[in-house]
Amino acid sequence: MNIYLVGEAAEHVEDLRPHLAKPYNIIGLPWTAANTTAFDGDITADDVIVSLRLRRPGGTAPAVRLLHVPGAGLDQIDFAALAPDTLVANVFEHEIPIAEFVMARLLEWEIRAGRLQESFNPQAWPSLYRRRVPHGEMYGKTMVLIGYGRIGRAIAARATAFGVEVVAVDDSACSDAAASVMPTDQLAELQRRADYLVLAAPLTPATTGLIDAAALARMPAHAVLVNISRASIVDQVALFKALQDNEIGGAILDVWYHYPDAGDSAVIPAEAPLWELSNAWCTPHSSAWTTDLPRRRYAVIADNINRLAAGEPLRNLVRPAGGDSSRRS
Amino acid sequence: MNIYLVGEAAEHVEDLRPHLAKPYNIIGLPWTAANTTAFDGDITADDVIVSLRLRRPGGTAPAVRLLHVPGAGLDQIDFAALAPDTLVANVFEHEIPIAEFVMARLLEWEIRAGRLQESFNPQAWPSLYRRRVPHGEMYGKTMVLIGYGRIGRAIAARATAFGVEVVAVDDSACSDAAASVMPTDQLAELQRRADYLVLAAPLTPATTGLIDAAALARMPAHAVLVNISRASIVDQVALFKALQDNEIGGAILDVWYHYPDAGDSAVIPAEAPLWELSNAWCTPHSSAWTTDLPRRRYAVIADNINRLAAGEPLRNLVRPAGGDSSRRS
Repeated sequence: MNIYLVGEAAEHVEDLRPHLAKPYNIIGLPWTAANTTAFDGDITADDVIVSLRLRRPGGTAPAVRLLHVPGAGLDQIDFAALAPDTLVANVFEHEIPIAEFVMARLLEWEIRAGRLQESFNPQAWPSLYRRRVPHGEMYGKTMVLIGYGRIGRAIAARATAFGVEVVAVDDSACSDAAASVMPTDQLAELQRRADYLVLAAPLTPATTGLIDAAALARMPAHAVLVNISRASIVDQVALFKALQDNEIGGAILDVWYHYPDAGDSAVIPAEAPLWELSNAWCTPHSSAWTTDLPRRRYAVIADNINRLAAGEPLRNLVRPAGGDSSRRS
Repeated sequence: MNIYLVGEAAEHVEDLRPHLAKPYNIIGLPWTAANTTAFDGDITADDVIVSLRLRRPGGTAPAVRLLHVPGAGLDQIDFAALAPDTLVANVFEHEIPIAEFVMARLLEWEIRAGRLQESFNPQAWPSLYRRRVPHGEMYGKTMVLIGYGRIGRAIAARATAFGVEVVAVDDSACSDAAASVMPTDQLAELQRRADYLVLAAPLTPATTGLIDAAALARMPAHAVLVNISRASIVDQVALFKALQDNEIGGAILDVWYHYPDAGDSAVIPAEAPLWELSNAWCTPHSSAWTTDLPRRRYAVIADNINRLAAGEPLRNLVRPAGGDSSRRS
């Protein structure tokens, strides 16, 4: 069994190797291996491909044992081109850094420790000390989560430990120790008591524009909107106006309406200049962008390869053997 | 029963009143009521005093039913001046904002979201997005807590929810779900694997200067020291040198070696200019300085007054009836 790491995956040979039970050949291939037949002659039915993308001009990919996607998204995989017996698995783990990011930003929203640090002035210590302005706490606040999947649960587990009451709206999840889960038709009512409204739902026709002017108007004047999911869940013009008019307290925005692609050098992240508002905390889609994430992901991939070799069931299987093309994301 | 709020406590009449079971008289008195007999003629044996300080020049304070200190510290109370039947209680609750502060700063240490926010530039969006630098995570890190009292436990409960392994050193506490507790003689060994070393112990002869040059040398080069307890647990000159020479990763410092007092206008927070180092994050003793803290504390005080009136046991009793002057802090 050879393991082919394609494109960006080829940078992670040393994240994968130490976790493998046997000294397999690990072979890095360029991006062209994802979308052309250039390297297919080397690849056998006993091999594993790790790649974010897989397409073939002729519609027939090498009949490998396992295609492991080193991320959650499957939209770059042409399932129809895969051999019926090729297993497909993906990896998550990004819920951890995203939840850390959400908690970091909400704690900073309450505490403003960065500003306290900037204000530190040993020459003016007595007046600085005496004039300290009290800050806020997360304890006792209410967080409404839209979406209670992997990311929502990771956020809820952490927020609950801070004495935050977490209520999630999700039509296909159940309440657990970290959150009460309510049907989505309860959202309008729940929003009225949300100190924090956190978007952790996928972008679907039902969630596109879900947070519009009417929804923003239901939030308390001090409430903070957090979006680490997809920008278009929120109407950007309505959000800009609500922030500008202080109809809500603020917004923590890590996701954007437009992203750069290879041919588009002049793109801006949104039409509404949200970054001009002091109560909008804008970051460049960074929440899951950690050094630890690929390390954790390649450890999961190695574990799956070890399971494959040992004939054990794989984790995060999105297409079992036999070519059933049902897809979970 | 009248309730006398002395000095700073007099600002909290409206934090207390809504939680009282009966409409008691609540009377604000100036600071002079803490240390002189000026108002003693009005105070009867049926009353309650709420004050951070209580001393009398003649050594005899009014024989009230309850002296409630609206904080944790008892060093401003002259226990010998109290009548034998005066109960004394204090309040905590500061462990909540202190734990939030520690987690906020450690998350920011890993994520640097403030810097990401400052870097946000819609004109340079494509290059900003493509050149994002991966950040760190708390997940999987090891936190060594020195001291596993109220504050240590509040920190551990939160850190554990982030997948941090928490080990505490404390000779009088037990392991629980949030932390393994080890005897203090294990500290030197534990320090070697501490990603975060958090000081949550009181200042005693045993802890004064505990973190000296030798202790700092045992920490990993990336480790972060967090002090929200008392500055003098750490040798400031050794800390300055360890930070300057990058022997440790950084320090989060909210407590200081010198504090202003009424007659001392030129005091500086420390002799070693820690604030000049970019890897020392200095704040002006702000961790517990929240708007919610006094509200929560006066709710506890009101609950104790209600318990007193109902003949029920009080919370946080530091001196029971009969004048036993044993003190817990």
